[in-house]
Amino acid sequence: MNIITLTTDFGVADWFAGTMKGVILGIAPRATIVDISHGIPSGDVRAGAFALAAACRYFPRNTIHVAVVDPGVGSGRPAIAVKTADYFFVGPDNGILSLALSREKIKTIRRLENDSFFNRQVSHTFHGRDVFAPVAAHLSRGVPIQKLGPKVNNYVRLNWPVPKRRPGKIHGEIVYIDQFGNAITNIDAQDLATGNPPRCEVRTKRKPLGTLQTHYQAVPLHSPAAMIGSTGLLEIALNGGSAAASFGLKIGDPVTVTVRDVAKL
Amino acid sequence: MNIITLTTDFGVADWFAGTMKGVILGIAPRATIVDISHGIPSGDVRAGAFALAAACRYFPRNTIHVAVVDPGVGSGRPAIAVKTADYFFVGPDNGILSLALSREKIKTIRRLENDSFFNRQVSHTFHGRDVFAPVAAHLSRGVPIQKLGPKVNNYVRLNWPVPKRRPGKIHGEIVYIDQFGNAITNIDAQDLATGNPPRCEVRTKRKPLGTLQTHYQAVPLHSPAAMIGSTGLLEIALNGGSAAASFGLKIGDPVTVTVRDVAKL
Amino acid sequence: MNIITLTTDFGVADWFAGTMKGVILGIAPRATIVDISHGIPSGDVRAGAFALAAACRYFPRNTIHVAVVDPGVGSGRPAIAVKTADYFFVGPDNGILSLALSREKIKTIRRLENDSFFNRQVSHTFHGRDVFAPVAAHLSRGVPIQKLGPKVNNYVRLNWPVPKRRPGKIHGEIVYIDQFGNAITNIDAQDLATGNPPRCEVRTKRKPLGTLQTHYQAVPLHSPAAMIGSTGLLEIALNGGSAAASFGLKIGDPVTVTVRDVAKL
Repeated sequence: MNIITLTTDFGVADWFAGTMKGVILGIAPRATIVDISHGIPSGDVRAGAFALAAACRYFPRNTIHVAVVDPGVGSGRPAIAVKTADYFFVGPDNGILSLALSREKIKTIRRLENDSFFNRQVSHTFHGRDVFAPVAAHLSRGVPIQKLGPKVNNYVRLNWPVPKRRPGKIHGEIVYIDQFGNAITNIDAQDLATGNPPRCEVRTKRKPLGTLQTHYQAVPLHSPAAMIGSTGLLEIALNGGSAAASFGLKIGDPVTVTVRDVAKL
Repeated sequence: MNIITLTTDFGVADWFAGTMKGVILGIAPRATIVDISHGIPSGDVRAGAFALAAACRYFPRNTIHVAVVDPGVGSGRPAIAVKTADYFFVGPDNGILSLALSREKIKTIRRLENDSFFNRQVSHTFHGRDVFAPVAAHLSRGVPIQKLGPKVNNYVRLNWPVPKRRPGKIHGEIVYIDQFGNAITNIDAQDLATGNPPRCEVRTKRKPLGTLQTHYQAVPLHSPAAMIGSTGLLEIALNGGSAAASFGLKIGDPVTVTVRDVAKL
Repeated sequence: MNIITLTTDFGVADWFAGTMKGVILGIAPRATIVDISHGIPSGDVRAGAFALAAACRYFPRNTIHVAVVDPGVGSGRPAIAVKTADYFFVGPDNGILSLALSREKIKTIRRLENDSFFNRQVSHTFHGRDVFAPVAAHLSRGVPIQKLGPKVNNYVRLNWPVPKRRPGKIHGEIVYIDQFGNAITNIDAQDLATGNPPRCEVRTKRKPLGTLQTHYQAVPLHSPAAMIGSTGLLEIALNGGSAAASFGLKIGDPVTVTVRDVAKL
């Protein structure tokens, strides 16, 4: 039980992420710490939740996933640790853990109230260092989650958009734009598994995108392509460039897929 | 004695930080290397010194802190290793270590002159790789600091601004702006401990900021707040945004705190 | 055989690099993973190849170097693992490994075809996670490279520019610009070893640069300097600033060195 991952909006310019690691290693010298990302946009709980959910299941069992995008730090918002069938999750109870948790089998949720597992002095503005890092380190050393605080029955869920199905159409939206400029939608591969082979068209508000491709270079250079990306979700890409920049795509932009009946093609 | 931290202006786009790690692991395969930051602005010794000082004490005893912001590399400026009661510090003697060292109990300072602990070939432009990484690795393997070079009696100190106290007022300045846009001043919590509870007002040259808050969301969204931040210093923040960007704050900008007599309020 | 390095264009904002590490640690829990860079410009195989070549030999023997700048992912372009006298290299066969390999003694090249060493599900867009990470992890656990796939006799080489020698002159070009704005050329120290001491002048298309300097501060503040950088190549720097920004230097810009006969000076 020795891997601890970190997903934060702390950036890599300042000392914040490094300081969390110092605290962890002071408590759990043998922990292996892995950065999932410190580049979540400041205060963007949705982006952090998406990144954590995209990555967490590629880690071995018993990994402790810490996520800190926490604009409410110091305000009294609860903080939680969650044990699932495969992992631990630690963070503020503001939705940051919720996309990942929605796919896990939850065993117990605890509110972090036992300050004997916090740093001796707890600041009002850096619970990553003073609460979440030490709690994760103690978990990795085998402290039972029950000791961290009282049991709670639920956790805050993000209001995540769900695609709408209409006859022959699926209406979704862009939920994440990665650093390549690929625009990831909330429409997943199973939504599109309507034929053999699936045939569909994707339209954003600005741009018809043609049928599903399998990879970036399946279309000519600087042409757009829609495909199932590595998260299992439909994404809009541009071979050799940034789809988001080229087409002005933003989070929340609608994406419509027209599902044609295979028999009619 | 197995943790080595790195604080540099090498960025994360090129191979510089990674190369230092290769050198360290070649000498000390069991070292745990932690990045404090590689995002110090190019050549900004003050920012590097601040980051190191903010982070270093959150690491366990015997950690070896390496800091390399080194515009004078190759010029013959001295390089030093310092043993304090709790840590080792390694870097150019240009002030980068000085804020951290000012809070430590110094045991010995050595000038790095014994090139048997350097890389076989030492470049003129990358002592992070050729001098500081191998020296830190040898220290982590237990090489006595005395072997690194002759004893020296002092180290270069930055000309760090000290707040000025006037009757009822403290005049300080902004010394660091973090990636959230929080503007950290040189006024510390003890400077403000003048009553029970402390009451004060903070004014920058542009903006009255009201009394001290405890956390970001203690003020309405997009409102500014002054508070004691996680470094123990007064900082100017903006709930849900960047104080520095919104108010045009820069390093060196004056910040005045009016300390009111509690009895008069 | 426990160090695995990563050189990619995945950035640090998303979860891509972290996910590769999760996959590696699931297979090889004791691997030490070192980032060389995740900041290679998107799809820039040449920059990735340069970074890998600049860093790889500073790692201990048997290090496994993974490089993934892979615009052709999913297209059927081959992927390879290469064993050299000192290292392993793993990546797409698109030239990303070629600068590093050109200096190594190659033992065997294998095409990655045995999918029992891949993730169970292989996406079309993220072979870093699904192919290269697991292959590297298996190599670090001692899987013989022969098991990864059939032997191939060659690898794709970049069309890397070679300096042209003329009587008294060397014509090279800028091949990499680092984050300090230093412009690194393809002219190496040995090209300039024409006297004792070597004397030369460097001209870019815009700017005479004078004779070779040894370090940045050998010239006045904000003055340019040409010197042999830490990669052993001639580079154009600016004391206290960015040569690339100040002079508008770009990759491919010509650099001419005039080699004067020492006797005539």
